[in-house]
Amino acid sequence: MTAPNPRIVEIYLDPLSPYAYFGWVLIQRLAAELDLALRVVPVVFGALLDANGQKGPVEIPSKRTYTWKDVLRAAKRHEIPFEGPPAHPFNPLAALRIWTALEGSAAQGAWVDRILRAAWAEGQDISDRAVLTALAEQLPGGGPELLRRIDAPEVKQRLRQNTQSAIEKGVFGVPTFLVEDELFWGHDRIEHLAEFLRGDLEVDPEQLARILARPASAERKRTT
Amino acid sequence: MTAPNPRIVEIYLDPLSPYAYFGWVLIQRLAAELDLALRVVPVVFGALLDANGQKGPVEIPSKRTYTWKDVLRAAKRHEIPFEGPPAHPFNPLAALRIWTALEGSAAQGAWVDRILRAAWAEGQDISDRAVLTALAEQLPGGGPELLRRIDAPEVKQRLRQNTQSAIEKGVFGVPTFLVEDELFWGHDRIEHLAEFLRGDLEVDPEQLARILARPASAERKRTT
Repeated sequence: MTAPNPRIVEIYLDPLSPYAYFGWVLIQRLAAELDLALRVVPVVFGALLDANGQKGPVEIPSKRTYTWKDVLRAAKRHEIPFEGPPAHPFNPLAALRIWTALEGSAAQGAWVDRILRAAWAEGQDISDRAVLTALAEQLPGGGPELLRRIDAPEVKQRLRQNTQSAIEKGVFGVPTFLVEDELFWGHDRIEHLAEFLRGDLEVDPEQLARILARPASAERKRTT
Repeated sequence: MTAPNPRIVEIYLDPLSPYAYFGWVLIQRLAAELDLALRVVPVVFGALLDANGQKGPVEIPSKRTYTWKDVLRAAKRHEIPFEGPPAHPFNPLAALRIWTALEGSAAQGAWVDRILRAAWAEGQDISDRAVLTALAEQLPGGGPELLRRIDAPEVKQRLRQNTQSAIEKGVFGVPTFLVEDELFWGHDRIEHLAEFLRGDLEVDPEQLARILARPASAERKRTT
């Protein structure tokens, strides 16, 4: 199969995740190097966790401390401006619905970028509609019409569909990158994605099938 | 504080995890570059998951498929020989107890290496005592005496203590690397560890404390 040009990369994002912010910043850098068409698919991270009965990293006390330290290290290492939001977890739905309302619009990328930077680089509370209204004044396609669509039933429904469809495709976290049926999960897998796009990281489908077909020989005793 | 020389790196491992194997191989490469004293602390990965009420990556159907693909990609990218065990999950306790019985012994490293390579590079079933007996014939400190210690109550108890103590230190997965009170989780955080050891990845404790003190402004609705 000949790869399309530009290569289309779907990016599954929820602004709740600092790693989604890093993934967004880092995929821009890769897109400056390779010929990529980026399409953001807004999804509700909490619903992905629910679908698998998992807790988020900041919902486990020891993992919460470690995760924020890891986030600060990753920001430093990749030279990404970082402040973090005034409260976390926050409600990401209004921001997610703005991104959803803009699916297919040329303005979506600017809005994804602006909201992620507002929350994570500038420390703004993007769950606050007044904050989103102020951002809307600076952006294309913004204004009262866009903000009203936050509460539109078809936008809410579309976000639920996005999330359900992502779960069906095997997406379980954010950021996830999907290119030509291959998933890459985490800002720290953009290196895998880059090698895949360069043709250097194909998985042998027979080897994978062989591994997936192997049985379990022990089951974990559940003490919880 | 002046860092000790060599720098002591504790490595929390369970042979059940392919990433623990990658972490072990990659930390050897780093140790060939920097002056590191490696100490393996065997821990029961399943008990770490239980302590946090989490599922392992291969216990979630969509994550299982993705994880094995990610494992094959990581093996290829880092040029690490990979075959994988004949069954997975398998019971890692006999192997863990051999490593535990050898804590403080100069022979431990050779045994960690041999068992991880047997399972992950050669496709041997290391839950099988006959396989471990065959490996013991090739290794220092092996033989019937070591194998009998697999069932020694004090070795079982020591492994439980290791795991409990790891949980208290904030370890929640394998591989985890601990150096001078700093945790690094995952074979993919050895790059962070390397920069930390070179003095280039200190986290600002005041910034971290500020972030950890921030409140939550939303809670995830639990549908499970």
